Amino acid sequence: MINQFYKDMLSGRSVIRELSEYATERGKEIGYENVFDFSLGNPSVSAPDAYNKEIIRLHETADSMSLHGYSPSPGNPEARAAIAASLKKRFGLDYETKHIFMATGAAGAIAHAVRAVTKPGDEVLTFAPFFPEYGPYINHTGAKLKVVPPDTESFQIDFGAFESMLTENVAAVLINTPNNPSGAVYSSDTMKKLAQIMYDKQKEYGHSIFLISDEPYREILFAGAERVYPSAFYDNSLSCYSFSKSLSLPGERIGYVAVNPAAEDADILVIIMTQISRGIGHNCPASSVQQAVMKCLDLTADMSVYETNMNILYDALVRLGFKVVKPGGTFYIFPKALEDDASAFCMKARDYDLILVPADNFGCPGYFRMAYCIDTEKVRRSVPVFERFVKEQYTNA
Amino acid sequence: MINQFYKDMLSGRSVIRELSEYATERGKEIGYENVFDFSLGNPSVSAPDAYNKEIIRLHETADSMSLHGYSPSPGNPEARAAIAASLKKRFGLDYETKHIFMATGAAGAIAHAVRAVTKPGDEVLTFAPFFPEYGPYINHTGAKLKVVPPDTESFQIDFGAFESMLTENVAAVLINTPNNPSGAVYSSDTMKKLAQIMYDKQKEYGHSIFLISDEPYREILFAGAERVYPSAFYDNSLSCYSFSKSLSLPGERIGYVAVNPAAEDADILVIIMTQISRGIGHNCPASSVQQAVMKCLDLTADMSVYETNMNILYDALVRLGFKVVKPGGTFYIFPKALEDDASAFCMKARDYDLILVPADNFGCPGYFRMAYCIDTEKVRRSVPVFERFVKEQYTNA
Repeated sequence: MINQFYKDMLSGRSVIRELSEYATERGKEIGYENVFDFSLGNPSVSAPDAYNKEIIRLHETADSMSLHGYSPSPGNPEARAAIAASLKKRFGLDYETKHIFMATGAAGAIAHAVRAVTKPGDEVLTFAPFFPEYGPYINHTGAKLKVVPPDTESFQIDFGAFESMLTENVAAVLINTPNNPSGAVYSSDTMKKLAQIMYDKQKEYGHSIFLISDEPYREILFAGAERVYPSAFYDNSLSCYSFSKSLSLPGERIGYVAVNPAAEDADILVIIMTQISRGIGHNCPASSVQQAVMKCLDLTADMSVYETNMNILYDALVRLGFKVVKPGGTFYIFPKALEDDASAFCMKARDYDLILVPADNFGCPGYFRMAYCIDTEKVRRSVPVFERFVKEQYTNA
Repeated sequence: MINQFYKDMLSGRSVIRELSEYATERGKEIGYENVFDFSLGNPSVSAPDAYNKEIIRLHETADSMSLHGYSPSPGNPEARAAIAASLKKRFGLDYETKHIFMATGAAGAIAHAVRAVTKPGDEVLTFAPFFPEYGPYINHTGAKLKVVPPDTESFQIDFGAFESMLTENVAAVLINTPNNPSGAVYSSDTMKKLAQIMYDKQKEYGHSIFLISDEPYREILFAGAERVYPSAFYDNSLSCYSFSKSLSLPGERIGYVAVNPAAEDADILVIIMTQISRGIGHNCPASSVQQAVMKCLDLTADMSVYETNMNILYDALVRLGFKVVKPGGTFYIFPKALEDDASAFCMKARDYDLILVPADNFGCPGYFRMAYCIDTEKVRRSVPVFERFVKEQYTNA
């Protein structure tokens, strides 16, 4: 019998995906170059040559069994060792191979991390604005996602709201910095306060509360932003990483969970994740991709375009009177709409072929997200269109 | 809080994995060439050159975004179309792109197929002997695996036992032909009977009962065995395939679910699977691997070695007095042990450096499995060792 729970989900389509599909269709009518499509967070720069060269070298020279054979359940041991060493060097935590679990991108990493440190019925807190996929990511494990309202002044954390929601039922706190959709980067002050509250509550409740840190945008950090590694602030922490953005490899599905060596059961958490894999059909990222990525840990794609685009858009938005927090990283910007109903605002923008995503289901109504991982030339061309849109729709002159 | 359910699983280690690790350790003492390791079903032949060449070509010439960018949730549309066309041509079912869901090997395929057509609490039947991983594969979805006792005469199906277990609570039947561990291939007579009983019970109970067909060994078929495509016998069927064995790419994690076009909700089952993906952290196989495999659909690795090895072992086992059904495919053979306790039998064999897997947790006590995906030369050398073992331990001369 068809599972009704999943069947019912078909009616709740993703707004982002619908807008993206609209943009594609509209592009067929008027030329895609004339559609200012800020809907999708799809990296627009090329993967580093070194990655492609390493894949070619492996397929020209490596033994078939060692290249294409099964990886052990937690991942290729050399890849895990290289990642542990790289993280240790950069962030000072004593990672060893046993702390690294290879995963199919951040989604795969979170699927394992959440199951490892929660049980069905537990609550997982996250902070608005948040990536809407956290809903199914968390709720399908049997745990329950609860969203702490946003601090819209800075997109750091509303600690009053956080403390009141951090009840005994909370088993984990999920953060995402640099943040999708706000582009905000948590400061070390924010991380210290967050950690202190969680340490206090662990003590008060007599059980562990894990920090799950979703970090696909770790390497997209703009001038002036502080480099903060969340796991360095809190012992019971799991870093979920993806190479999707840093190496522009989103389709290759490669990332990891790094278990803080000081965490409870740190020595067996990765083995616990291998048990989780057996039930959810995950058996490591592709063996060849693991082997190539481990040679590219100190590289990134050329991501300077994202900062260039951010500055163009930020300046234009400020000039046009938008309330907007300057992003510290990612390839998103998150302004307040010019009317209370962000969906109505985005529908009006669509008439100008500006494809903007209303933030209602990011937990932050009244705001909208722009993904500027597109050509700079197109970002520039969008500015006068934005000006015309605002003038015609929101200026009573 | 660490999830106790998964933590408790750590004590229940896989017998196969333990034996394989023993073989590796023993190999360090006496040289691995002297350990007759029949424990693991890891393909031993090379991937076809055409696969490696296509990966190299893609990484030399393809646009980075189209090669490494996100695949749509159900998989690369060209790969899906190519697979649909290939299956249609070979097996005569009217597959279209919409019926193909790309998955990370058969494990990923089953994880989606089971969730799509069962709900927590439903029963899933399978037939002994069976691949022990079916336990976590099924039970972690919330459904319950029930095992129909074996027909040890032919390793086809004990239909009496099947009918009595096919109650109203059963939502799906999981088969695996060619079979791990028996090597048996279901005949078309077996498939016809199975389908008829399932059609009758669907009618009687007034609800669908899905056939989930796990087919990683589809292409390893020996002389004399009938080529049977299970989905051709039953409308409500999902074929779960992996390229792990046919292209010798187990580590690359690539396979699919093919939804029978005549199945209930056939037009939306793949979309339902994309919803399932959101909760279990699956987001397609690697994009580059999908693109390379779609050019290799009519190829296989050179798998003739498996049949050569099977014949050597089958002849030797028969000569030594074992009760054994001749395999029609796979790289497994499944003889009856020479004493009731197969674990004791395999422990004695271990003293001769023969690494055999007792079949207690394959649902068939008293039998053992040999995986002969190893060099033919080593298979040949194992025969006199087997002879000595049997003579010294089981011949009262």
